[in-house]
Amino acid sequence: MDFIQPYTSLIESELKNLGLPEKPETLYQPQIYILSSSAKRIRPVLTLLGCGLCGSEIDKAVPAAIAVELVHNFTLIHDDIMDQAESRRGEPTVHVRWNRSTAILSGDGMFVQALLQLQNLSEDVDFKEINREFLIGVNRVCEGQALDMDFEKRLDVTTQEYLDMIGGKTAALISTSLRMGGMAAGASDEMIEYLGILGESLGIAFQIQDDLLDVIADPEKFGKRTGGDISEGKKTFLMVKTLESCTDSEREWLTGLLKRRPVSQSNVHKIIDLYKKYGATDSADALMNEYYSKAVKALDQFGDSDYKRDLQHLIHYLKKRDF
Amino acid sequence: MDFIQPYTSLIESELKNLGLPEKPETLYQPQIYILSSSAKRIRPVLTLLGCGLCGSEIDKAVPAAIAVELVHNFTLIHDDIMDQAESRRGEPTVHVRWNRSTAILSGDGMFVQALLQLQNLSEDVDFKEINREFLIGVNRVCEGQALDMDFEKRLDVTTQEYLDMIGGKTAALISTSLRMGGMAAGASDEMIEYLGILGESLGIAFQIQDDLLDVIADPEKFGKRTGGDISEGKKTFLMVKTLESCTDSEREWLTGLLKRRPVSQSNVHKIIDLYKKYGATDSADALMNEYYSKAVKALDQFGDSDYKRDLQHLIHYLKKRDF
Repeated sequence: MDFIQPYTSLIESELKNLGLPEKPETLYQPQIYILSSSAKRIRPVLTLLGCGLCGSEIDKAVPAAIAVELVHNFTLIHDDIMDQAESRRGEPTVHVRWNRSTAILSGDGMFVQALLQLQNLSEDVDFKEINREFLIGVNRVCEGQALDMDFEKRLDVTTQEYLDMIGGKTAALISTSLRMGGMAAGASDEMIEYLGILGESLGIAFQIQDDLLDVIADPEKFGKRTGGDISEGKKTFLMVKTLESCTDSEREWLTGLLKRRPVSQSNVHKIIDLYKKYGATDSADALMNEYYSKAVKALDQFGDSDYKRDLQHLIHYLKKRDF
Repeated sequence: MDFIQPYTSLIESELKNLGLPEKPETLYQPQIYILSSSAKRIRPVLTLLGCGLCGSEIDKAVPAAIAVELVHNFTLIHDDIMDQAESRRGEPTVHVRWNRSTAILSGDGMFVQALLQLQNLSEDVDFKEINREFLIGVNRVCEGQALDMDFEKRLDVTTQEYLDMIGGKTAALISTSLRMGGMAAGASDEMIEYLGILGESLGIAFQIQDDLLDVIADPEKFGKRTGGDISEGKKTFLMVKTLESCTDSEREWLTGLLKRRPVSQSNVHKIIDLYKKYGATDSADALMNEYYSKAVKALDQFGDSDYKRDLQHLIHYLKKRDF
């Protein structure tokens, strides 16, 4: 992704110069730790691009971009506690490296730091508006996480409910990232609306693709073994779609397996066969393409610029990814 | 506390009409639950009084007051997880009533709701300034909580470090509550400064008093048995002061006990004797009075008003409390 490198470099350099206090270490060291792990920085890059798309210098959106990246990392720290995840980006998670209390507290502190970043926006930016946008975005992420937790206990989740869930958990912050970029640029409500549709579509497409890659990707390239989500009993698009479409006896068999996780590798392959039988993989592929097209269409509303070209590249790159 | 009843009624009625969404229940039910338990609402009342002291209608500070109360409850939800507390205000804590993940998430969501409340401030209030004040206050609470966690593992905490810790954990939000009231009133920097000193002093006095009451209060009135903090091995002002002053052999005995909590009731009484021997209870009493006087002196900077009279009452009432 060489074409986004100038943007990620800017973000990395800003993150290195955040100037978090040294003490109390219990509060700040975990924040510094998670920010120093290598990450794609997609969200803050989108904030910069959203600002550029609307005709402004991208520097104007830097505080918003950093806020978005900090809040994303705050949600990762807390999500990893909830999911009891042991590692993230190849490093131990915060609650494993330190402990659960430290992870809760440093996550809270990181959210505060994210919000404080917005104080650095220039005076001509509508601070109250951008603050509201940010908070509503984070609240939607919380709502999505709540739905995801609820779905774990349910076996009758509909595809619409699934889309609502990822609309919050994955797409909301991506949408907010782009919209905040537009707001930093002082763009019109109409342009901000298009940025929102672009982000929402991109986020949903990306998540469905993630669900799909779990089943169809080359495990070596993807970095995870085939059907990892199935083995963990996750309610992915494919699972939800198949549960909706299959026969009662198949549903009984499936739900029986989901209650006794982890699912064995031989059953994982049987489930993948069931996904194919009911066209869940094809449906996912079609829906993913639909959302990517929606994103491209929203992007077409903006005038030509280097930022538009880079964002077109990025969408193309994401759509073609096989890892 | 009849004299603050008009203020608490206003807060309670606003809290009842918050209009939190019904779904997802996993996110909002715990928020509604903790807000409906009976509480003193001291912080939001101070925000209203801070606004009134500066010559404005207290209605202007209502969004700030509600924000302060919501953020206080957010910290309670997360603190209770960290402290593994089973009950709060006579009810099961959120992580006990639901589970830990739900408590982390609903706490996060409650912090978002707190910040969203500030959006309701009227247009003539400096939104960016009050937002910054709020965030810096919450960050100081996080710093105080981090120090408190660090102190648990240390036996060489100084009284100065202890005062820094409660300055964050207890006093910062009380100071911020009053300062935000002044900011909502559009008060001068000088007046806001006095509100901060008033809040900071009140918070520190209140916490030292809490430490003292653990040892000297009538258990029936106080609602906790004598020496509860000692039994849990908490680093109170009395403990820190005594560890600073006692002989090496006494320190060895004390630190030995603190490593093997809970401390037995007979040892609790021996420790209280040690507190008295080294004048820790007298020191605490003197320091508490010093901070209450500082609070009164800061309040004297304001012109006469009903709000000043009510705040004088409140300080007097808090100082005389024996529970």
